[in-house]
Amino acid sequence: MFKKILIANRGEIALRVIRTCKEMGIKTVAVYSTADKDSLHVRFADEAVCIGAAPSRDSYLNIPRIIAAAEITNADAIHPGYGFLSENAEFSRICDEYNIKFIGASPEMINKMGDKATAKATMEEAGVPTVPGSKGLLKSMEEGKQIAAEMGYPVIVKATAGGGGKGMRIIKSEADFKKGWDDARQESAAAFGNDALYLEKFVEEPRHIEIQIIGDSNGRACHLSERDCSIQRRHQKLVEETPSPFITDELRDAMGKAAIKGAEAIGYEGAGTIEFLVDKHRNFYFMEMNTRIQVEHPITEEVTDFDLIKEQIKVAAGEKISGKNYYPKLYSMECRINAEDPTKDFRPSPGRIVNLHLPGGRGVRIDSHVYAGYVIPPNYDSMIAKLIVSGQSREEVIVRMKRALEEFVIDGIKTTIPFHLALLDDPEFKTGNFTTKFLDTFDFSRIKG
Amino acid sequence: MFKKILIANRGEIALRVIRTCKEMGIKTVAVYSTADKDSLHVRFADEAVCIGAAPSRDSYLNIPRIIAAAEITNADAIHPGYGFLSENAEFSRICDEYNIKFIGASPEMINKMGDKATAKATMEEAGVPTVPGSKGLLKSMEEGKQIAAEMGYPVIVKATAGGGGKGMRIIKSEADFKKGWDDARQESAAAFGNDALYLEKFVEEPRHIEIQIIGDSNGRACHLSERDCSIQRRHQKLVEETPSPFITDELRDAMGKAAIKGAEAIGYEGAGTIEFLVDKHRNFYFMEMNTRIQVEHPITEEVTDFDLIKEQIKVAAGEKISGKNYYPKLYSMECRINAEDPTKDFRPSPGRIVNLHLPGGRGVRIDSHVYAGYVIPPNYDSMIAKLIVSGQSREEVIVRMKRALEEFVIDGIKTTIPFHLALLDDPEFKTGNFTTKFLDTFDFSRIKG
Repeated sequence: MFKKILIANRGEIALRVIRTCKEMGIKTVAVYSTADKDSLHVRFADEAVCIGAAPSRDSYLNIPRIIAAAEITNADAIHPGYGFLSENAEFSRICDEYNIKFIGASPEMINKMGDKATAKATMEEAGVPTVPGSKGLLKSMEEGKQIAAEMGYPVIVKATAGGGGKGMRIIKSEADFKKGWDDARQESAAAFGNDALYLEKFVEEPRHIEIQIIGDSNGRACHLSERDCSIQRRHQKLVEETPSPFITDELRDAMGKAAIKGAEAIGYEGAGTIEFLVDKHRNFYFMEMNTRIQVEHPITEEVTDFDLIKEQIKVAAGEKISGKNYYPKLYSMECRINAEDPTKDFRPSPGRIVNLHLPGGRGVRIDSHVYAGYVIPPNYDSMIAKLIVSGQSREEVIVRMKRALEEFVIDGIKTTIPFHLALLDDPEFKTGNFTTKFLDTFDFSRIKG
Repeated sequence: MFKKILIANRGEIALRVIRTCKEMGIKTVAVYSTADKDSLHVRFADEAVCIGAAPSRDSYLNIPRIIAAAEITNADAIHPGYGFLSENAEFSRICDEYNIKFIGASPEMINKMGDKATAKATMEEAGVPTVPGSKGLLKSMEEGKQIAAEMGYPVIVKATAGGGGKGMRIIKSEADFKKGWDDARQESAAAFGNDALYLEKFVEEPRHIEIQIIGDSNGRACHLSERDCSIQRRHQKLVEETPSPFITDELRDAMGKAAIKGAEAIGYEGAGTIEFLVDKHRNFYFMEMNTRIQVEHPITEEVTDFDLIKEQIKVAAGEKISGKNYYPKLYSMECRINAEDPTKDFRPSPGRIVNLHLPGGRGVRIDSHVYAGYVIPPNYDSMIAKLIVSGQSREEVIVRMKRALEEFVIDGIKTTIPFHLALLDDPEFKTGNFTTKFLDTFDFSRIKG
């Protein structure tokens, strides 16, 4: 087992990894930017190394400095968390080169799954259902039009290098094709320096349902059931839950089997997530694979009693998984508490937290790095806490989440708490019958600021 | 179901009751003393009524003011929490008189179990094992000596009105009898205005193991397994855990059955705890019954998925229990975080909390009413937080508790956190093989202040 793990990240996920390392008796090294010197991940790690200034390229994305920090402190492994370098093939490769175990996917795997067209083709070959569409990249607009005409509108064109909702356009008819094509190409060229596009059948009334998997170096994988992440605003997840109110036991088994098939076909090692779109007829289609821990992993832990960070570390150290799958024994939901003003189009709201009371009591888990007096720097993403609530039923989770949000006091900044309270009161949300489009028609004006 | 519950208490337990009421859709009324005006139970209740000055007799023990607060706010029930009026038969009777449901035991039940000699005789009659001793109160020192001579030393004399370790003396031989007798009588006369004593065989190497029960108005009771509360300092519990590392499945069943037998024999309604002493041969003896919720109830909730406050409220509202018993599915431990200096004989340390970071993450539950900036008043008991940690095994709970304590930051006051950290490192504690005498020989000098 590793003796010392460097955590190449910040905020709640750095703290999350430190917690498991402490429970496993593994020493930890925090790295931090000058903007994060008062951060709890610095305080709670056994050692901490300042790696540069606030801009991420100077610190959390600066590979030479992170490698140097690992060498100085004699760390034998690096946990990248999510975001930053967690899906950077070059970083994974360099870790290998320096004989530091990267607790994540191999460079090959990251490359294969990072390129959306390759990922899709790979999964299709493995027998995982995918959305019908172009075979790989489109050579021309004409080819796109022809495929769209064959499979019927609406379709969606997507940047192969895309992510976070950028570089994609829904096209509803042939007349709109040129505009969608041009817009997607321009956006993806600007954002990713790559304007290659592919095309898919647009899935109507889609739900975003992902399967957590973990694979070992024997090439064996198991699944830990699903997370429903359909509550999204501009492709940003805000609320996740498990089990999904939409899927049946049969569908869970089918999706779990497909996810395992996909993971085993590529010999996937480590924790990963296979994201699917599920349409209203309960057909499911491979969307993408994330080769890292997800923000929303705690809800899976709560319902399965499985410490995903611990298992990531164990698998990285060469331990084998049992091969059995894990099914939800409880219900769990996560609300992402962001320092954003939901009454002002989710505008970021960095600044000093004056008063803070985190909710507690039964069925409440908090993953957060903030404290009263903490100044949220403007440099990073705005998530300041994950509120994870569990219970015996979805109804119980909803009332408990509401009471937890009501007793969550953060003075000094704006947060998404009022949004979550409004969401939990929404009759449609309560039924569990919603799609990824739910927030497109949500009346944000009813949020009490 | 009740529409509005007044909580005749303060601190974490008031907050605990408010949480469940919110989840049940029941309105809440907080009462508070002037010393508690900035307390969170005041902030989070739907209504709050100031009932007087800091000394408890002017506020939390002032029955007329509490009844007046309930009448003014139209509360239809009162939850007394623990301590204060929770086991006050007069209060229970007056609530009845005013047609306000007392969520606790009837006056008769409180009286019967509040008087230790009567409680013991009642349980003995119901067939619950009790410690051999005098039949009721001792008429004279000579009677005590004679019984002690028959059953053998050591024996213990106890005040019938006693509690919290006051008014009791262990007597090791006939030569010591007079001194022990006189001391116990004087102490109990001073503390309780009642110097009546009874005598028992002194149980050697005892463990304090209690069974949680709940009974309904049909006269039926069930048990929720045990809590091991052997880690005590001067009869004050500091750490509790479930399941007990000492008891077997057979013993759990036997103790559970005995507890149910005792509860049903007296037609007990509501949540209650039957405390047993268990000797090294795994004989168990009735010690006392608490006719209220216990401080340490959350560990039972964590391992059984049973909300004890919710069930108290439901049973008080006339609902019936299913009759099935509940067994631990996990391991859980509670550390009481008190504002006391463990390096200075646990001297109280009230004052302002300057910085606060509560631990979070997997398997961690916090029941607490404090926040950064909160001033702990000197008037009340010193418990400021309950840290409840759960996991798949006792070992996992111990490492998780340790990491949670290590990340628990409270600046500005002294707390028992360093004591708990020293305890968790103790090899004997780790084995689970300890008695109620454990802390008598604990080396408190190794606590890092």
